[in-house]
Amino acid sequence: MLDKLKRQVFKANLDLVKHGLVLFTWGNVSAIDRNSNLVVIKPSGVSYDTMTLDDMVVVDLEGHVIEGNLRPSSDTPTHLALYKAFPEIGGVVHTHSTYATAWAQAGKDIPNIGTTHADYFHEAIPCTADMTSEEVQGDYELETGNVIVKRFEGINPIHTPGVLVKNHGPFTWGKDADEAVYHAVVLEEVAKIAAIAFTINPNLTMSEHLVEKHFSRKHGPNAYYGQK
Amino acid sequence: MLDKLKRQVFKANLDLVKHGLVLFTWGNVSAIDRNSNLVVIKPSGVSYDTMTLDDMVVVDLEGHVIEGNLRPSSDTPTHLALYKAFPEIGGVVHTHSTYATAWAQAGKDIPNIGTTHADYFHEAIPCTADMTSEEVQGDYELETGNVIVKRFEGINPIHTPGVLVKNHGPFTWGKDADEAVYHAVVLEEVAKIAAIAFTINPNLTMSEHLVEKHFSRKHGPNAYYGQK
Amino acid sequence: MLDKLKRQVFKANLDLVKHGLVLFTWGNVSAIDRNSNLVVIKPSGVSYDTMTLDDMVVVDLEGHVIEGNLRPSSDTPTHLALYKAFPEIGGVVHTHSTYATAWAQAGKDIPNIGTTHADYFHEAIPCTADMTSEEVQGDYELETGNVIVKRFEGINPIHTPGVLVKNHGPFTWGKDADEAVYHAVVLEEVAKIAAIAFTINPNLTMSEHLVEKHFSRKHGPNAYYGQK
Amino acid sequence: MLDKLKRQVFKANLDLVKHGLVLFTWGNVSAIDRNSNLVVIKPSGVSYDTMTLDDMVVVDLEGHVIEGNLRPSSDTPTHLALYKAFPEIGGVVHTHSTYATAWAQAGKDIPNIGTTHADYFHEAIPCTADMTSEEVQGDYELETGNVIVKRFEGINPIHTPGVLVKNHGPFTWGKDADEAVYHAVVLEEVAKIAAIAFTINPNLTMSEHLVEKHFSRKHGPNAYYGQK
Repeated sequence: MLDKLKRQVFKANLDLVKHGLVLFTWGNVSAIDRNSNLVVIKPSGVSYDTMTLDDMVVVDLEGHVIEGNLRPSSDTPTHLALYKAFPEIGGVVHTHSTYATAWAQAGKDIPNIGTTHADYFHEAIPCTADMTSEEVQGDYELETGNVIVKRFEGINPIHTPGVLVKNHGPFTWGKDADEAVYHAVVLEEVAKIAAIAFTINPNLTMSEHLVEKHFSRKHGPNAYYGQK
Repeated sequence: MLDKLKRQVFKANLDLVKHGLVLFTWGNVSAIDRNSNLVVIKPSGVSYDTMTLDDMVVVDLEGHVIEGNLRPSSDTPTHLALYKAFPEIGGVVHTHSTYATAWAQAGKDIPNIGTTHADYFHEAIPCTADMTSEEVQGDYELETGNVIVKRFEGINPIHTPGVLVKNHGPFTWGKDADEAVYHAVVLEEVAKIAAIAFTINPNLTMSEHLVEKHFSRKHGPNAYYGQK
Repeated sequence: MLDKLKRQVFKANLDLVKHGLVLFTWGNVSAIDRNSNLVVIKPSGVSYDTMTLDDMVVVDLEGHVIEGNLRPSSDTPTHLALYKAFPEIGGVVHTHSTYATAWAQAGKDIPNIGTTHADYFHEAIPCTADMTSEEVQGDYELETGNVIVKRFEGINPIHTPGVLVKNHGPFTWGKDADEAVYHAVVLEEVAKIAAIAFTINPNLTMSEHLVEKHFSRKHGPNAYYGQK
Repeated sequence: MLDKLKRQVFKANLDLVKHGLVLFTWGNVSAIDRNSNLVVIKPSGVSYDTMTLDDMVVVDLEGHVIEGNLRPSSDTPTHLALYKAFPEIGGVVHTHSTYATAWAQAGKDIPNIGTTHADYFHEAIPCTADMTSEEVQGDYELETGNVIVKRFEGINPIHTPGVLVKNHGPFTWGKDADEAVYHAVVLEEVAKIAAIAFTINPNLTMSEHLVEKHFSRKHGPNAYYGQK
C-alpha cells in the first residue's frame, strides 16, 4: 500500500544523509496521505546504510501500525500531532543538525535577520518553552508535538515551516516529504549564518519591509521568483 | 548567439557549486558582451543538477529577454545596474555563501586586516546601507544595484571587486565570469578568516603600508606575482 | 590468537578515520577479551594508510606484549587502567578530535544541555583535574588512567562512557570497540553543538527531568528506542 | 638535476591541496640540497591542477634561477632566509590556511595549551612583529624572512618548527619537505582547537610540566612514541 509515498519517504530519509544533516540514526522523515489519513515514517533506530524501502512503516493518525515489520520512529507521536494540527502540511522532518540544535540548546528563537531566512521563513524560527515535568514524564513525544502546536498560536505554520524544540532540535515540515527536507536544509544553513553573524555584531538589525519583500517575492500572491 | 559566452557563464555557475558557495539555487553568474551590450545570465530558480547550457538566458541592458525559454534570474536588474555603472567589468556573481552572508547580516564592512584580503581587495569590503521602504517596495532588484553603486562612490570597483548587500549577501565581479567567481571564493575565505580573527583579538590592526604592498604586488604597475 | 577481536580492533581504528576523528596517527582503539584478560591495541605511531591487521598488538593487563612485532600504542597503560577499573567495558578509544579536545584544553566539563547528549551520556562529560608534576614525570600514561578513574568516583562509567583528559583530549569506552568508537563520534558532535550553543546564549539551561527522560528512553529498564 | 628532490617538492605541494590547506595558488613548498646549496621551489602563481614536475624551479641561495622555465614563488626570498638562518632544516612551507591565518591576523602567538601542540611545538607558536614601512617597501619578501629569524632569537627553530607572520599567514619547516607539510597540517589543527578552546574558557591554563613531558615523549633523548 502507499507505494509511491513510501518511495518518497525512503528517498527523503536518505536525502538527510546526503545533505549532512544526520549522524547515525538521528533523524526521520514522514509523509501523510490525506485521503486515507495514513502516515509513512522511518523505522526507529535503523541505520541509513542498511535501511530498505520495505522497512518503511505505515501508521494511522492514532499511531497504530497498519503495515510494516518494524517499530516506527520513537518520534512518531510528534509527527502525528503536527499532521493533526496543521492540515495543510504533507511531510515532516526531525533532525539533530548541528547549528539548529545549538540554537535549540541555547533556547533562543532564530531572529529573522537575513533574506536567506526571509525567503523561506516569514517569522523568527521559534523555540518552544521548557516542557514541564508532567509533560516529560507523561506521553513525552505526544507532548513534544503539543508544545510545538502551542508555540504556533498566532504563527502561520505554512509561512514559518519549522521550529526548535528547546534543548532538543529542529522539526520542519512542508507540502510533502521533499519540501520538509528542503526546509530542514535551509534551517540548518540559516542557523549557521545567524550564529556567525551575532559573533560579528551582537546588535545587528533587519528592517521589517525587507523581510516582507523577500517572503512575498517567493510566496505572496505576486511571487515572481523561479519559473512559471 | 553568444555561444562562447554562454559556455563560460554555464561553467562559471557550476563552479560556484564546486567551490561550495551555493545551496540549491541560491546563486547566479552573468557575463556581458560589451560589443552588443547583451548579457548572458542563469535562469531563475533552476537547479544546478538539471541545468543545461541551453537554459542560459540572453537579455539586453534594459532586461528584455533576447533569447531563451526561461525567465532570467530575479537578480538580473542588479547585475545590469552593475554593468552600466562599472564599464570595466565583464562578469558578475551573486551568492549567499555562509561567512560573507554572515558579515552582510551583521551589517559590517570586512576590514582589510590581512594580506589574503589585500592581495585581491584594496579597501575594506563595503557593506551597503539599509534600503528604504520605498526602495524595497519599488523596483527592488534595480534599487539593490543602485545602493551598491552609491556605496562605491569614492571606491574603485576594479580594485575592490565585491560588496556585501546589507542583510542579504555578497556580489562580486571581475573582467569576466571566471574572475567574478574567483573573487566570490576569495571573499568567502576572507570573510571566514576575519570572523575567526576577531574572536581571537577584537582589537587587531594592520598597517596601511602592508595593505599597499600586497595589493600593488599583484595589481600595481610593477606587479611581480605569477608568470609574465 | 584472538583473530576475531583483532579484526574488530583493526576495523574500529579505521572507522575513526572514516568519521573524521583523527589526523595522522592521533588516535587508537583497543578491545579486551575478558576470558583471557588479553587486550588487542593499535601499534604506536603507525599510519592508518599502511596499517594492516597483522600490526595489531596483543598485551596482557600488565602491558607485556604477548603477540605482535610492533610496540603497542604509547597510551596502552591508560587503556589498561580503564579495563581494570571498569569491569563492564570491552573497548576503549582515544582521539584528539577537534571540539572534544578544545573542551579538554578549556579544562571544562561539557554540561548536559541537550537531548543529543542525554541520549548517550547521563552526566556532564567530566574533565579531569590537572595532573601533578609527580604524576606527569612518573608513569605518565598509567597516571593518566588513574586521574580518569579518580574523576569517576561517584559517576557510573557505563552511563557516562567518556571523559576529557585536561589539556589533552577525550577517551571513550563501550561494551566493545565499535561502541567505543560510536561514543567517540557522539562526544565530538556533542562537544561541537555545546561550544556553539554557549556562544549563542552563555546562560542556557536544561531541566533535570528532560535529561532523565532521554537517557532512560534509550537505556533504562523501560527503554523503547530502536527495535526489540 | 636534483630529480629526487624535485619529485619530493612536487608531491609535497600537492599534499597541501590534499590536506585542505590551500585555495587556488596560495601556498608553496621548497626543499634544499645542503650539498649543493640549491633549493627546489614551486613556481609563482601556477595552478595546482595543471602544475607538473617539470615546473619546479631550482634556485641558489641568492635566488638566481639555476634551472626551470618559470619564475619561482614570489615568497622565495623568505624561504632562502630561513635556510640560511636555520641550518638544520631541509624543507619550508607557506600557506594561508584558515585558522593559522586568523591567528596571524589577530597578531597573537598561539599559546601552548594542549598536548597536541606540545607533541610538535615546544613553545607558543610565535607571531612576528609589525613590519616597518621601510621593511615593507624595501626587499619585502627577504625582510619577511628577517622578521621571522629575529622573532626566533632565543627560540630553537627545530623544537618550534613554525611561525605566524603578522597579518599574513604561517610558515612551517622540517628536516625535509614532507615534515614541513606535516607541521603545516599540525599548525592548522592546533590553531583551530586553540581558537575554539578560548571561546569556551578565556582563562584556560596548561602546566609547564605537561608541556615538557609531551614534547620530550616524542622528541627528547628518551623519546618512546612510535616504533624504533
